[in-house]
Amino acid sequence: MGKVIGEGTQPLICTPLVGRNQEIVLAELAIILEKMPDIIEWRADFFERIANTDEVIALTNAMKKIAGDVPIIFTIRSIREGGQIISLSDREAIELSAAICKNTSVEYVDCELSNLPEHFQKLCKIAKQNSTKVIASFHNFTCTPRKEILEQKFRQAEEYGADVAKVAVMPTSVEDVLTLLSATLEAKKKLKIPVISMSMGGLGALTRMFGGVFGSTVSFAVGENSSAPGQVPIDDLKTVFQIVKKSMGM
Amino acid sequence: MGKVIGEGTQPLICTPLVGRNQEIVLAELAIILEKMPDIIEWRADFFERIANTDEVIALTNAMKKIAGDVPIIFTIRSIREGGQIISLSDREAIELSAAICKNTSVEYVDCELSNLPEHFQKLCKIAKQNSTKVIASFHNFTCTPRKEILEQKFRQAEEYGADVAKVAVMPTSVEDVLTLLSATLEAKKKLKIPVISMSMGGLGALTRMFGGVFGSTVSFAVGENSSAPGQVPIDDLKTVFQIVKKSMGM
Repeated sequence: MGKVIGEGTQPLICTPLVGRNQEIVLAELAIILEKMPDIIEWRADFFERIANTDEVIALTNAMKKIAGDVPIIFTIRSIREGGQIISLSDREAIELSAAICKNTSVEYVDCELSNLPEHFQKLCKIAKQNSTKVIASFHNFTCTPRKEILEQKFRQAEEYGADVAKVAVMPTSVEDVLTLLSATLEAKKKLKIPVISMSMGGLGALTRMFGGVFGSTVSFAVGENSSAPGQVPIDDLKTVFQIVKKSMGM
Repeated sequence: MGKVIGEGTQPLICTPLVGRNQEIVLAELAIILEKMPDIIEWRADFFERIANTDEVIALTNAMKKIAGDVPIIFTIRSIREGGQIISLSDREAIELSAAICKNTSVEYVDCELSNLPEHFQKLCKIAKQNSTKVIASFHNFTCTPRKEILEQKFRQAEEYGADVAKVAVMPTSVEDVLTLLSATLEAKKKLKIPVISMSMGGLGALTRMFGGVFGSTVSFAVGENSSAPGQVPIDDLKTVFQIVKKSMGM
């Protein structure tokens, strides 16, 4: 059985796929699967044929077949939240995610909270009809908004009907790292849905290793190539998780 | 050259010696030195002949000879701060620490902030005359006092003339761990002397691995036997430190 976000005692380790074409993505997938991640994220905004819905569906299905029990998150990260430049509008990106829900068996689709609420909720509805879960995400690659804003983002995810709430922000000080951890802890207590959070960059790297203690349910690790600053190689992350588990008596 | 608390980019790893007699202490020391700690703490309150000053001095000198460049902290932990029952009064314990400053070349002596200020400052004076540094310490094995109290303990250490300020407290929630880290960060910014801090127990174990990011300059690890709850084995701690260093680009 594949793992489920929010279940288990330690965060799931998720590795991103960032290949530009089918050949590279499938090669990345094969290499990454050997490292045994708990979950895989396909960052489809890196895929150069993203405008061709049929190709995206076909590749997603091919990946799903190879990944077996390992769940897949289908993600189109927008340029404003740290993604690649793509030819699709926000609306078209949402429509592509909806088509993925309808025509593939991926377990999760990512949808940014910065989308129009009606678009977001439309995707949630289609996802639900197809038993796909929605990860509502918020990213800030330049700074860490204050705690109240972070808490509001987590809350909004639940209010919009998402299944998982994700917040990824950039610290400019060690205080910012504490702010993110503190907001995560609050969200974990107040929300019914699981949360994912991280402080990015070198300064935030510790949240990728220790975020689980504060309630984060997924940590993004480098499998073959990183998709965001500060990601830790999967082998290192597994080593630290093991030591944390032992030390904390988990 | 031996390491100095407060210097370098990563916390020093300190392993405690908790043997009851000379034979056991020296055997522990030999085993621990093979694991290459940065610094060693002799918890003299575990030593059954602590009432015999000459024996304590002789053993300290023997240890110093074997330890070579590895600095030693001489510590008499009181029963009220998590130590062993000893026959010495607080005053006698301070006098023994003073005798150690005068008659051995240990680099550090620990002195609890809960001592009478005049006793504390007398030890500081004698330590200074003998080029021994004083670590002013505060422990709470049942809870984590609020942030203002922790900050006050750090500040008091500097006001009393100590060379290093140490705060070790027990968390009863994950919030307590954040409180300790936050107070450490504040102390690091405000104080001129280096700080050492940790949240104890399983819940606090992460502060032993990541406290350095928030300003803690020493992490206590298990060499042969632990001296406080939550201590991580030295080999595990070294592994995590290495991954942290790499991940943070330190």
